Amino acid sequence: MAQLVNIDGKIYPPEDAKIPIFDHGFLYGDNIYEAVRTHRGKLFLLDRHMERLQNSARMLHLSLPLSLDQIKDEIVRTVEAAGNPETYVRLIITRGVGRIGLDIDLSSKPSYIMIVVPLEPPPPSYYKDGVKIALVDIRRNDRLSLNPGMKTGNLLNNVLGYMETKKENAYEGIFCNIAGYVTEGTVSNVFIVKNGQLITPPPDAGLLLGVTRGLTLELAAEQKIPLKQRNFYPTEMLEADECFITSTTKAILPVREVSNRKFSPMPGPITKKLMDAYHHFAEED
Amino acid sequence: MAQLVNIDGKIYPPEDAKIPIFDHGFLYGDNIYEAVRTHRGKLFLLDRHMERLQNSARMLHLSLPLSLDQIKDEIVRTVEAAGNPETYVRLIITRGVGRIGLDIDLSSKPSYIMIVVPLEPPPPSYYKDGVKIALVDIRRNDRLSLNPGMKTGNLLNNVLGYMETKKENAYEGIFCNIAGYVTEGTVSNVFIVKNGQLITPPPDAGLLLGVTRGLTLELAAEQKIPLKQRNFYPTEMLEADECFITSTTKAILPVREVSNRKFSPMPGPITKKLMDAYHHFAEED
Repeated sequence: MAQLVNIDGKIYPPEDAKIPIFDHGFLYGDNIYEAVRTHRGKLFLLDRHMERLQNSARMLHLSLPLSLDQIKDEIVRTVEAAGNPETYVRLIITRGVGRIGLDIDLSSKPSYIMIVVPLEPPPPSYYKDGVKIALVDIRRNDRLSLNPGMKTGNLLNNVLGYMETKKENAYEGIFCNIAGYVTEGTVSNVFIVKNGQLITPPPDAGLLLGVTRGLTLELAAEQKIPLKQRNFYPTEMLEADECFITSTTKAILPVREVSNRKFSPMPGPITKKLMDAYHHFAEED
Repeated sequence: MAQLVNIDGKIYPPEDAKIPIFDHGFLYGDNIYEAVRTHRGKLFLLDRHMERLQNSARMLHLSLPLSLDQIKDEIVRTVEAAGNPETYVRLIITRGVGRIGLDIDLSSKPSYIMIVVPLEPPPPSYYKDGVKIALVDIRRNDRLSLNPGMKTGNLLNNVLGYMETKKENAYEGIFCNIAGYVTEGTVSNVFIVKNGQLITPPPDAGLLLGVTRGLTLELAAEQKIPLKQRNFYPTEMLEADECFITSTTKAILPVREVSNRKFSPMPGPITKKLMDAYHHFAEED
């Protein structure tokens, strides 16, 4: 099992992978990223990740150092060099080196970093038994301050959310926004099911448009499961029939418990249907 | 004029100063910092910066890699090695190297970085003529999401604020919070004067307790200038008699113009009194 890091085209072992202190990607957290995975050794939904990367870049006025095709080629090259059976790739684009100051024009040359490590999906039992999640007190970054729709390296909000999650002995923490509506998890999107309808918070709640969230919505439509993107408060989550979270590494993961509310059966029937559809899709893709 | 970077006790020229990709200070922006300056070659209000550093660390459950006295010694050593007439020091504490994941316990050993460069204060004419500032549309990070009272490396909110500032051809941009109250600048605190009273937003507006902000409040008290920390909307700023910003590198800098409102005389009488008091204090310290 190998870990490799590609920095601007040169591949390093992890202990030699370093970036300049003066890269604004470090000094200001001025960087964007994507997390991609393989299924059966093949990069999964790579084009969707590339599209989102481009969107984050546009929102931050960050120009990509390579074309999307070149980025994909470099990812493939690094993944092949590592040779893991299943892979996790973290692709980071930084603003680049510049002297101290908030002005993005101080940095002239963005850099790319590809971290390739063995994929560590949740153990199979989590899909059978579900996971415990926690509602955290800290609120998700507001769209008017730092839009969670951009996937950036300013992740302290998430780090603080995870501190609370861990204190609650939970697997994942779910944020509300300033208005009190449920938004998303620290590293996932969240769905509930009530009376046969699938519900997930809408983009304007302030959340990342997760690639797996998007796929889940498509699979639900194919399966003729009624679905609605709308705001809801935590209480509605506690009164739901089913609940699950989605992410690139977790796929569709059923929730067993939130704030002493226990869901059963595990997984719920709609969740199970979507998990099966995801599995089928990933095998076919 | 020399630039030097001290990383965990070893001093490098800027081009050789690098940090590991796997430092969560980079991957998650999980780092805190302080910006310190010299006056007449002497580090100015260093103890206040150390106190605030400790406060940021506590809020993020980050343990400092050295005692405060050791940190001060290392700063002095690096500043002396650089030998600049006047110096700017950026002290950064990172979470340290750890594998990918939001959990702070994945990183066991925090690192420190001291960037020492020649001080670049605003030109003298700015203190005589004042500067133009802009009210930016993007809102300051909310206290419930990422408290601006912590001085962290998650600075994209400020970077985005500065983009707007530059578009307005202004020198500094001023944020409002989600509630619409004025909070602080992208790299400064803001004060207004109305009918002889000095007014600045209170901590619970969501702002950094600037060291120069604190000193200014003390100097105002000594000068028997009536002062009040309270919330105000941008309109009140436009109707003020005087306005100024404060920061470590800018000290007390008068504002000439905001959103087509022009202040005169320049600097205003209360602003001038405080600038003189600051100058006197800095010479004596």
